[in-house]
Formats: sequence, C-alpha cells, structure tokens
Amino acid sequence: MTSLLLRNVRPMAGANCDILVKNGKIAGLGRFEPEPGMAVEDGGGAIAIPGLIDAHTHLDKTTWGMPWHVNNRAAVLRGRIDFEREHRTEIGIDPHRQSMRHAIGLAAHGASHIRSHVDIDTTHGLSMVEGVWKTREKLAGIIDIEIVAFPQSGVMVMPGTVELLDEALRQGCEVLGGIDPCGIDRDPKGQLDALFALAVKHGRPIDIHLHEVGDLGAFTMELMFERIRANGMQGKVAISHAFALGMNDYLRVGRLIEELAALDVAILTTGAPSATVPSIMRLKEAGIRVGGGCDGIRDTWGPWGQPDMLDRAKVIGMKNGLRSDNDLAHLLSVVSQGGADVMRIEGYGIAEGCNADFTLLTGETLAHAVVDVAPRPLVVKGGRVVARQGKAVVDMP
Amino acid sequence: MTSLLLRNVRPMAGANCDILVKNGKIAGLGRFEPEPGMAVEDGGGAIAIPGLIDAHTHLDKTTWGMPWHVNNRAAVLRGRIDFEREHRTEIGIDPHRQSMRHAIGLAAHGASHIRSHVDIDTTHGLSMVEGVWKTREKLAGIIDIEIVAFPQSGVMVMPGTVELLDEALRQGCEVLGGIDPCGIDRDPKGQLDALFALAVKHGRPIDIHLHEVGDLGAFTMELMFERIRANGMQGKVAISHAFALGMNDYLRVGRLIEELAALDVAILTTGAPSATVPSIMRLKEAGIRVGGGCDGIRDTWGPWGQPDMLDRAKVIGMKNGLRSDNDLAHLLSVVSQGGADVMRIEGYGIAEGCNADFTLLTGETLAHAVVDVAPRPLVVKGGRVVARQGKAVVDMP
Ligand SMILES: [Zn+2]
Ligand SMILES: [Zn+2]
Repeated sequence: MTSLLLRNVRPMAGANCDILVKNGKIAGLGRFEPEPGMAVEDGGGAIAIPGLIDAHTHLDKTTWGMPWHVNNRAAVLRGRIDFEREHRTEIGIDPHRQSMRHAIGLAAHGASHIRSHVDIDTTHGLSMVEGVWKTREKLAGIIDIEIVAFPQSGVMVMPGTVELLDEALRQGCEVLGGIDPCGIDRDPKGQLDALFALAVKHGRPIDIHLHEVGDLGAFTMELMFERIRANGMQGKVAISHAFALGMNDYLRVGRLIEELAALDVAILTTGAPSATVPSIMRLKEAGIRVGGGCDGIRDTWGPWGQPDMLDRAKVIGMKNGLRSDNDLAHLLSVVSQGGADVMRIEGYGIAEGCNADFTLLTGETLAHAVVDVAPRPLVVKGGRVVARQGKAVVDMP
Repeated sequence: MTSLLLRNVRPMAGANCDILVKNGKIAGLGRFEPEPGMAVEDGGGAIAIPGLIDAHTHLDKTTWGMPWHVNNRAAVLRGRIDFEREHRTEIGIDPHRQSMRHAIGLAAHGASHIRSHVDIDTTHGLSMVEGVWKTREKLAGIIDIEIVAFPQSGVMVMPGTVELLDEALRQGCEVLGGIDPCGIDRDPKGQLDALFALAVKHGRPIDIHLHEVGDLGAFTMELMFERIRANGMQGKVAISHAFALGMNDYLRVGRLIEELAALDVAILTTGAPSATVPSIMRLKEAGIRVGGGCDGIRDTWGPWGQPDMLDRAKVIGMKNGLRSDNDLAHLLSVVSQGGADVMRIEGYGIAEGCNADFTLLTGETLAHAVVDVAPRPLVVKGGRVVARQGKAVVDMP
C-alpha cells in the first residue's frame, strides 16, 4: 500500500518528472518504471507540493455537516465562549463526529497535517480531547493530528483548569495552549506563570491564542519574552493570531519582531479579515517561522470557513495585499512548509527521503494554483492515495 | 420564451411556493398550473432571490480564461495603471472577448445586472467601451450591462481625456466615472470641476473611484459634497471604495456619513481585504444606499477574484466581521437589492409585477446561502433560464 509510482507531475511547479514512493517515503524523483505489483498513478502534469498544513484549527467545534446553526446573539467574545461551553452538547456538536468531518475535509483538500486546539474546561473536562483522539486513531494514515490542550474558557478565571491542562499533557497532548492572558483571564502574570510552569514540567511547547490588539497584546508578548528567556524555551513557543503585530506602529512592531526572531518564536496566522494581522512578508524578512490555519470553521462563533487550506491561503493572501507571483508562492509556502517549520515535522518536503505526503494542484504556476483554489486532483499520505478530485477515500460520518 | 412556471421555491427563504412568469415579468407567487406550452421548472425547494448585482466591476480588464499572467512588477498604483494601458493590447486582453467571459461568468453565478467601469484613455480612446458594448448586445437577455466611462489613467494628468469622456457620454455611456482627484490626478479641483460639468451637461450620474485614505479621502469627499449641492446632484452620485470611511476616527467618519445621507450619495464597496473599508452596517443604520462589486478579477493589477457575487459577498462579509444571521441576510441584500438601489433598477424584486430576474440559492436560510457559495441551481433573466448548476446557457468565447 505504501509503494507508488506517480507519473507525470511537476514538483513545486518545476520540471515534469515521476515520484517514486517506497515504504511511505519518497524514493526518488525522475523517470521510473513500475515494479511488479506497484500502484501507478498519472498526475496529468499537475503541480506537486508537500501536504498542506492546517497549523491552527479547532476540530472539536465545527457544525460542518449539521443543520445550519442560527446565531443572532450579541457579538461579545466572552459571550461566545460561554454560549459554546454551555450549549455545545445540547446542540449536538459531538467532538468525535465533528472532528472526523473537519479532518476528512482537510485531507480531501490536500492537507497532510493538522495542529488542532481542543477545548479543555471545567464543564467538559477532557471529553473533547478524547473525541479528537478517537478521530486521530481512525484517521491514522489519512492525516496526522497534533493536539493542543486549549483552555478556551480561560485559565485563572476558571479554577480547576490548570489541573485539567496538567492531566491533558500527562495523557499525551503534544502542545500546551493558552488564551488572552489579559483580555480573557484578567491576570496575565497568573496565566503565563501557570502555562510556562506546566510546559517546563512536561517538556512541551506552548501555542497561545493572542487576540489582544495594539499595546495590550504587545505587553502580553513582552511578558512571554521574559518567561521564554527565564525558562530557556527559545524555539518552543508559538503565538497564534498575534493581532498586536498588525498595529499601525511600524517601529513598535519592529521591536516586537526583533524579539520574536531572537527567541525563535513562531507565528500562526489565519489572516483574520476584520482584525489587524501580522504581515507575513515582514515576518519572512525577519526569518520568523510562520504557519497558517483555518481556525474554527462554521461553528457557534461564526459561519465562515471551509476545511481547505487553499481557501484559507486566499483569505491570508488578500488580507496581506499580496499580488505578485513571488509573494503568492511564499503564501503557498506559509500553508505548507511554514506549518511544518512551526510543528517541527520531520521528513517534510518533496525530495528523496522525505515522507510521501503530497498533494497535486492544478495551475500553470504556484501562484496560479494558490489563487485558483481548484479541487486537488490527487492527495497522497504516506505513499497512499487518500483523496481524488477533492473527494477523500473515506466518507464523512 | 418569457413565460415560465417555476415550481417549488422559497422566495427570500420564506414559504414554499411557485413563481409564475409571463412576458418577462413575475405574474404571481402562489400555486399555479402550467398553461399549454409553458415551460415548467422544479426549483427543488431552493431559495429564490432577485438577481445578484455586480455594481462595481471592470469587464474590459480581466485575463480570465487566458494563460496565467505572471506579475512581479513593483507594487505601485501609478505603475499598475501605466503598465496596463501600455501593454494590454500586446498581452491580448481583447475587451470584447474578455468582457464576454467575465459577464457570462457573472450570469452563471446568478447575476442579472452589472455596472462596469470601462477604461477610457488617450492611448485607446473609446475602443474598450466599444468592445464592452458589443458584449452588451450579444448578452442581451442574459445579463444587463451598464457602462461607466472611466478615466483609469487620470483626467487632468492626461490632457484629452475630458474630451473623450464627453464623447463617451454623448455616445451613450450611462454613468460618468472618475478616480482619486488628489492621489492620481494631483488636482482635485480640476478633476471634480470637469466631472461635474460633464455630468450636468449630459444629465448623467457620477460614480467615482476613491481609494484615497484617511483625511485625504475625506477632503475629496467634502469637495464632492460642495459640488453636489452647487449642481443639485443629490441622489445622482456614487462613491466606489470610499476607503476614507474606514479610517479609525469614529466621529470624523460620522460627519462624513451624515453628509452622504443628506445628499443621498451611494457607496459601492468591494470589501478590499487589505484596505480600510466602509462599515456596511454603519451605512445601513444611516440609510445610505450601498451596493457591492467584484472589482477587477484576475487582471494585470492582481490575481484575485471570481466572477461570482456570492464569492465577493464572502469577502465583504468577512472583512466587515459579520457573523450573525441577521447581518448575513443584510450582506446578501447588499449584493442584490443594494446594487439595484444604487443603479436605480426599475422593477427589481421578487414580487408580482417585478422583472423575472432571479436566481436560486441552495441553503436553509439566507445566511446559510450567502456563506455556502454553492453553485446556483437555476438562474432566470427576463423569464428565461440562463444558467443551471453554475453553468450558463451560453459558452464563454
Ligand atoms: Zn483559534
Ligand atoms: Zn474599480
């Protein structure tokens, strides 16, 4: 199952060749004849890139495939958090079924890896994580899922949450999450001290949601920088959203970016259209690792989003005002190589010896492919075809 | 051809009924039996809304259906303008063929009306307008096209342009365009005096591109308000983009909006993701007519865009941070009724006596339909089916 000859493709929109896969790895790029019994596919001259990576999403939240969720509630962040926690079960947002739908959708659209924040709170304990774990097991070989233990409802404002996060990391969640230490928790020192202590205790990286804007978000970042230095966590922290980096103060943002680079802090962006967002080109110039993510799709928070990293690339690219072919090629790398850099995925890439995780894209060039958002002709994971023409080989439940 | 019984639809997502069409008009909503020889369609319970309206686009510019246009030129507005003017012919952007593709794409996605700015400059004279006129004739009965005589390269900086605009209006262009009197023309008094004189002379409305941001754009708006008052052009001026209304100064924007309302100036928005844009909800509260548009799609300026007003609604909605069902229903009205209000389309609507111009949408509610951006099941123009399942009855050239 993990040997494959994929003929007639253009890796990274370059010269046409074949990709030979053996034992789930890329054994060579060139011209090959099939070995007896080897599966053979014709790529039709499509572009091949390594699997797309959704490095920031919420598999446990979506209403995808469920009846339309009518929402005319007040547009208040705390209200969204509390509504979801209190009503998700009654609405029927089963974390296993819904994460299956979401993850299969991503795989169908060419993704090979997901980093998903999964809610942990004192109402539901670890049950959301358990649902997503079940999905991860069922989709082994289709798409890889990394789980961030995510205190959506807050840490310090919800006593008992630190203990739940501790337990989640003990049980194997790969990453520790956090959220708006000022805005949500009203206690930045409290949350950040607690998170860094947990991360050090379990030897796990941190990926924190930071929606705080302007000088407030900058302040929180500075508190994080102090703790990264104090705990030697250089290269082990990511900031999701980082809206403060979109503030209209070129010099202030420049100083934050210098610190991000010095401490090797990664940034994850969703290109949030109505917010101030980091400039992916400015972060690139500073050598910062940057990935992209769909964030929540069609959930109780809001209706937008698709389980498709090219659709998300479009959102990020338009928000960043990218137009040139060079910039669009970089945009495509943010939702692929960039996510791998943030998640430290080993063996990622289209080259001999890399994991045989790739997707075909239609288009003349990388820029054309990322703008077109056409169905992916073929998606391969570990050398196995997992989707064709936008349809996964497994059905959504 | 213009009599039709469309059964089993939900006008505006309301109660299921039939739509009876006679002589290109809606003869009734209710339950009907077909008359002998009358075409009958089953709407499958889909939502029916009046035709979508692209009230701001550029039919003469797109490279849609052409080879991918590689663009790594400098990101300078004046450079984009000059490159396009100097190279459009050599690149092969034939205004007739390309406007056919663009307009047929819009019809396939449920649009019934287009307002297109068409470039007029001293290099090409009226040849772009002539190409789009040919398209308008060929697509009569498929989609209506209104043409704005558009001085893309500037008015005062390009001597001879005023005379060309004069001629274009004489020959029948419905609307007079303009562009950034400060930013592009470097002579706001000069351009605005010239435009208002032409508009008065020909009795035509004005629709001006205003990308100028912050206080500069506000200044230009104030110069326009003075001239609207002086020339009695209340209700006859539209401002496209109006990025200045997105500036972060609530009170200043409020004063501009008061004047827009007092002078019945319409706003056309494309939801430009990387710019500051007007809030469609704030404009709604002020009672201002607001339409939406795709703007240029995949042209030498930039690669983004689709000939699809629901795709554009998504861009506008996400940029405006809309999430609630009520707001999403309003978003849908911006790209339909709002455009009709701006263009003063007579007989627009889903009611007895209105034009039989409508599109079906899949989805449970209006909000669901506008978020889903699924292929339109059926599009009807003047009582005639012009597209099915996202495919127009005429082929793109
Ligand atoms: Zn998130
Ligand atoms: Zn325009």
